[in-house]
Amino acid sequence: MSAASARPDETPNAVWLDGRAALEPSPLVLDRGLHFGDGLFETIACRHGRPRFLADHLARLAEGCERLAIPFRAFPALQAEIGALAGGAERALLKVLVTRGAATARGYAPQGNERPSRLILRYAWPPEDPRAEAEGVAVRIADLELGENPRLAGLKHLNRLELVLARAELRGSAFAEALLLSSSGRLVSGTMTNVFVVLGSEIMTPRLDRCGVAGIMRRVVMRAAAEEGLVVQEAPLGRADVDSAHEIFLTNARIGIWPVRAVQSRELVPGPITRRLQQRLRPWLEEQAR
Amino acid sequence: MSAASARPDETPNAVWLDGRAALEPSPLVLDRGLHFGDGLFETIACRHGRPRFLADHLARLAEGCERLAIPFRAFPALQAEIGALAGGAERALLKVLVTRGAATARGYAPQGNERPSRLILRYAWPPEDPRAEAEGVAVRIADLELGENPRLAGLKHLNRLELVLARAELRGSAFAEALLLSSSGRLVSGTMTNVFVVLGSEIMTPRLDRCGVAGIMRRVVMRAAAEEGLVVQEAPLGRADVDSAHEIFLTNARIGIWPVRAVQSRELVPGPITRRLQQRLRPWLEEQAR
Repeated sequence: MSAASARPDETPNAVWLDGRAALEPSPLVLDRGLHFGDGLFETIACRHGRPRFLADHLARLAEGCERLAIPFRAFPALQAEIGALAGGAERALLKVLVTRGAATARGYAPQGNERPSRLILRYAWPPEDPRAEAEGVAVRIADLELGENPRLAGLKHLNRLELVLARAELRGSAFAEALLLSSSGRLVSGTMTNVFVVLGSEIMTPRLDRCGVAGIMRRVVMRAAAEEGLVVQEAPLGRADVDSAHEIFLTNARIGIWPVRAVQSRELVPGPITRRLQQRLRPWLEEQAR
Repeated sequence: MSAASARPDETPNAVWLDGRAALEPSPLVLDRGLHFGDGLFETIACRHGRPRFLADHLARLAEGCERLAIPFRAFPALQAEIGALAGGAERALLKVLVTRGAATARGYAPQGNERPSRLILRYAWPPEDPRAEAEGVAVRIADLELGENPRLAGLKHLNRLELVLARAELRGSAFAEALLLSSSGRLVSGTMTNVFVVLGSEIMTPRLDRCGVAGIMRRVVMRAAAEEGLVVQEAPLGRADVDSAHEIFLTNARIGIWPVRAVQSRELVPGPITRRLQQRLRPWLEEQAR
């Protein structure tokens, strides 16, 4: 339990984990990621030994650290570690957490002398149902409504209880995903995806200025659309836009694009814009670590 | 890295913490408390070897587990551990965390087979400035506005980034605390305290149905008020109530009651209701572990 710069009364003099005294407590016992969710994460898809869209992931992480004033400087080391863990795996998922580090004092206030932690976990690529990409998925509207806080909007931070609860709503249902509205009725995203709606010739995705995570695949799809000569508008959307949409699709760093084939009882057909973007995206997902 | 009930592809096949491969990773590496803030905490003041208001803390924790569907059953063990850690210390603070436990699968969804973790940290009682209780403290209105989510309202859960940011606003200022409004303009609490306002003969505290933590000392003070024959109303309050209040005071499990002597540039005098409740409370705080 070393926290060199802490005042003696600010570090615990005893720590018990699951009933056992932790004489040499894990470095994570005091971590502000655990205590407050004071950190950020990225989920990086790796193909052919390379992390996909790594520059985008690192840019978002850097922006998050900046906005939360987490003094994380170890980007070169992190990038090397990600490369090492991605290498040798034909397909893998890396989850990267960066937190403000071990608390150097009691209480919420950052002291400014914390040393950020970085944690990387590598997972096998999960089994996939090709029908999700081909035929689309059925979604529902979540009962849970997201709170709105512009200070956290867009960040992939570690305060994810709302998504835990929203995801728990899906348990035992036939829905692959739930669309989330915010407390003021704004459409935000899915629980693990971003959402795009096509209304006539317009492609729109929720503006994420009040809540939600600005996904990497959301960014990549907007780039792909631009290369196709299509304009995606970031706009304040609501339930009515879901109800009148001609096409809806979901994006996520691992899955790419999933068409939505039903919103609750309303059926949709994966449409031409969705298919065009899927086609544009496919080589990027399969071949490239961009 | 044992998670017996997980599918093989749902547990990481490599974990690196701060650049080192964690061959026998800490049990917290996979904890959903760290990954999602999927858990709860209590800060328990101990005096004369006994945890103060323990029954209230355990009741709130149980309610939180119920609302988040965290299947924590080890209350007898937890209570014994709290008693053991409190014993022998004239004054101490215990921080208790209960999380849903190590993830047994990737992603937000609880699987139902998690085994909750419990972590207890004991801290020395911090130095106190007796003027806070006697003369009161100066507070400001935080710039940050809390998001509203009734599903999380009242709970002392581990998603505390908003409070980290709100607390950071106070750095280098002469204010001891900041009052928080919510995204819809409701008065909620301080960053580490609950708030009461006295308007004429009425004592009110914000109704915590949209956000905020239902503090143990808030509950105790309402009980103390009832024993004094005073009624405390839980009501939707706003900035205007702060501006017109005759008395304002803050509560917290460690400090008891702090009068507010100024809200930004507006000065207040610790008033008769505040003093009466402080007096009523004092023996409970000093003598009793109730």
